[in-house]
Amino acid sequence: MTDERENESPALLEWAEVEEYIQRASDAFESYRQYPVPQRMDFLRQIGREIDTIRTDLIEVSQRETHLPEGRLRGEIDRTINQINLFAGVLAEGSWVNAIIDTADPQRTPIPKPDIRQMQLPIGPVCVYGASNFPFAFSVAGGDTISALAAGCPVLYKVHEGHPQTSLLVGSCIERAARQTGMPIGVFTLLMVARDVGIQVVTHPLITAVAFTGSFAGGKALYDAAAKRSVPIPVYAEMGSINPVFLLPDRLKLHAEATATGLVASNTLGAGQFCTNPGLMVLLQSPDTEHFLSLYGKQLAEQTCHAMLTPGIYRAYTMGVERLKSMGTLSLLGEGKKSELAEVAVPVAFRVSGSDFLRDKTLREEYFGPASIHVVADDEAQLVEIANVLDGQLTVGVWCTDVDIDSFRVLFRVLEHKAGRLVINGAPTGVEVCHAMVHGGPFPATTDARSTSVGTQAIYRFTRPVSYQNYPDRLLPIELRNGNQPGIWRKVDGELTRKSI
Amino acid sequence: MTDERENESPALLEWAEVEEYIQRASDAFESYRQYPVPQRMDFLRQIGREIDTIRTDLIEVSQRETHLPEGRLRGEIDRTINQINLFAGVLAEGSWVNAIIDTADPQRTPIPKPDIRQMQLPIGPVCVYGASNFPFAFSVAGGDTISALAAGCPVLYKVHEGHPQTSLLVGSCIERAARQTGMPIGVFTLLMVARDVGIQVVTHPLITAVAFTGSFAGGKALYDAAAKRSVPIPVYAEMGSINPVFLLPDRLKLHAEATATGLVASNTLGAGQFCTNPGLMVLLQSPDTEHFLSLYGKQLAEQTCHAMLTPGIYRAYTMGVERLKSMGTLSLLGEGKKSELAEVAVPVAFRVSGSDFLRDKTLREEYFGPASIHVVADDEAQLVEIANVLDGQLTVGVWCTDVDIDSFRVLFRVLEHKAGRLVINGAPTGVEVCHAMVHGGPFPATTDARSTSVGTQAIYRFTRPVSYQNYPDRLLPIELRNGNQPGIWRKVDGELTRKSI
Repeated sequence: MTDERENESPALLEWAEVEEYIQRASDAFESYRQYPVPQRMDFLRQIGREIDTIRTDLIEVSQRETHLPEGRLRGEIDRTINQINLFAGVLAEGSWVNAIIDTADPQRTPIPKPDIRQMQLPIGPVCVYGASNFPFAFSVAGGDTISALAAGCPVLYKVHEGHPQTSLLVGSCIERAARQTGMPIGVFTLLMVARDVGIQVVTHPLITAVAFTGSFAGGKALYDAAAKRSVPIPVYAEMGSINPVFLLPDRLKLHAEATATGLVASNTLGAGQFCTNPGLMVLLQSPDTEHFLSLYGKQLAEQTCHAMLTPGIYRAYTMGVERLKSMGTLSLLGEGKKSELAEVAVPVAFRVSGSDFLRDKTLREEYFGPASIHVVADDEAQLVEIANVLDGQLTVGVWCTDVDIDSFRVLFRVLEHKAGRLVINGAPTGVEVCHAMVHGGPFPATTDARSTSVGTQAIYRFTRPVSYQNYPDRLLPIELRNGNQPGIWRKVDGELTRKSI
Repeated sequence: MTDERENESPALLEWAEVEEYIQRASDAFESYRQYPVPQRMDFLRQIGREIDTIRTDLIEVSQRETHLPEGRLRGEIDRTINQINLFAGVLAEGSWVNAIIDTADPQRTPIPKPDIRQMQLPIGPVCVYGASNFPFAFSVAGGDTISALAAGCPVLYKVHEGHPQTSLLVGSCIERAARQTGMPIGVFTLLMVARDVGIQVVTHPLITAVAFTGSFAGGKALYDAAAKRSVPIPVYAEMGSINPVFLLPDRLKLHAEATATGLVASNTLGAGQFCTNPGLMVLLQSPDTEHFLSLYGKQLAEQTCHAMLTPGIYRAYTMGVERLKSMGTLSLLGEGKKSELAEVAVPVAFRVSGSDFLRDKTLREEYFGPASIHVVADDEAQLVEIANVLDGQLTVGVWCTDVDIDSFRVLFRVLEHKAGRLVINGAPTGVEVCHAMVHGGPFPATTDARSTSVGTQAIYRFTRPVSYQNYPDRLLPIELRNGNQPGIWRKVDGELTRKSI
């Protein structure tokens, strides 16, 4: 690949062209949703194979565009392919449609009981907005796209300006996979558009859902644009959070060093550019806390980061850090190494008293990068008060021992209201792709706390339930027919079973 | 009961008082959600028993307030109690929390796999707005209130002005049940407020969800008010629909009489005051269709209705019918008997050509009452076009034979996009309360097509998923602990099982 390629600015689509693509996606929907499940599975798996085939090119191009280290990008490609295969597996197993069947009772008085059968159906064309910080796993063929395609929804993908060439390459993988597995034209479309055109997409009548990963400003702009539609649609914007971590006294007494090591590593990983980066630590005033804070500062001083994803992200981070440094209520706890390379974030940590934190709402905002604020609470009551005032988060962590668990029962109850995922003695970064994951949480972490954007449950963002009443067997979707040919789990007259009827 | 009682206007609460009640509900939330399941079940079942105890009073008062026939009200009370017991049964069985467990694998490379466990948790105080047409099943102790209470959410119930005395009586049943079963103060609050104060409730920061059943104007007003919140919340407004019914040719050839009888009965039931009332019939031009329409007109002429629910509803209905009568594109198909009593709706049916229907969007609006419009399409293509232009509906019906099913495959596919419930050869009225029911559908039938307001799945309107990562067993909710003491179905490492871990 030549340097010219990097400087090539891909042409941006005009709105009229975008409208044609949306129409094409809508046309594709009716046939795509009716494709037999094995064919849809083939399509997904082929996307993974195509990505694997051009892995070397992908790493080279994405490294240049994002400055992320090669090992990380390699791992992210693996994760992306695993995620695709996980959703193919969900389709293969088949029970995800949530089939519920209540059989008829013609003899019931005073009126006969009808036969009612419910399952999840795909909703229609979905517009996906990828993230800057995951050029693969949360971008073109990332979790949003794949869960929508798995559900049976065509996808229009708005390219992130941070990695356009990577996006073109991955987009071509999906297009090749679609052709090879006989998918309808329009099942997937890469939209290379300006920001305002990208926002306009959510207002189009044929768009039925929106999935976004990125900043609060970006997600809120889409949410507000969608709110002006005459027909409301779901908007799933994952907008990041400060992922508070509570460090309880017995833990700090026994394991200060390991705790500091774990949190410094999590906070500086990937130059701190994770939605789940731990940006706020909450501790109780004590000599052990002082010891921990000094360890944290010392360990942070040893850290160097790599260049940030984009000049804009670097600028926002350094300006944010300057602002924190200028605040009289904060003191510097430690600072990592400076680099002579361009746009390399310097990790930094501050401390603030519980009272000052409670007074200043701006300290609850996210600084995207390797920064953390350590809040030292006067006493347990203030610590719980801090927990109570927190906004919605993707994750909340607690580092604790058995002794701490017994002493802080109230804290754990409060935290259940605050996040999509609660983590004990572990880094919040590293979102496991599995069935039980919730990568979501109350606003402002996301715009819809009922959903997750990671893990198999993410598919339900793009479906709705439909009931069939007194349908003849052959007119029902195969999943609801008496014979249960796919052999899926169904709730029949209140009992889960894989038996036929 | 004396006549004075009827004329007593219950005092309306001021906003400051309402705010106190909301705060009280929010305070109740934390303790209510932690009550052991058997106690929450007792609370629900006791509500049913309290209603049953004052059944005679309830029928007397509600009959005076709503003009609904005694038999109907008796049946509705039965349904309301059954519904309460159904949700108590859901709690007793316990699997509704949707427990998903992915166990740890510390040996996994390159990084150990964490233990992740997910379940549904209640979201907080819910505001419920009851319907005029169901003084019991969709009012104070109706499906919205009971599913929210079952989920673990306190409820604030905004009284419908159509039946305030009935609401006070049912409200006192819930309050007595709460006291008797030791529920926290604030678990349920009856809000007797003016319309504007009622709307203001959805903007309160402590309200976490809204459930409404009623008109498009009413639901949209709440939806728009909620859209102005700084923290978005789910708004579940069920706003009714015209419930189109497609009458296919072979069915009309073989069963014209029975079809007419079934549809006339469904359209005039309860003076047509059902969300699922069939207001639009779509037919193909043919001699059989002419025969059916003449039968429909004749049968309708035999019908009398009872007084409508409120003077306002009667006024809106008669004005709507006058408007339809004045339209040059519509012809009168038949009209029911007039009554000398006040506010009695006269059933009416019109016919219109497919082309005229397609040209005039106002014919797709709901006329709440026993009116129907019969659209006669020129040919199958036009019939499918009519299906395509339909707005979202609660139900869509098809009356057909096996021959019709084979001839109209495309129609059935189109209709799957249009409604929450699809009904073959049956009246859309009569919403079975069961596991598989979807009483919902695409906008404007509701504001959230992902939900149902009837049946056990209604509980998920008031929950969100939370993941616990690497939690010690004893700190987990009982449903997620290794032992599976409640014996519920859980998805463990991808497999549904009731076994312990």
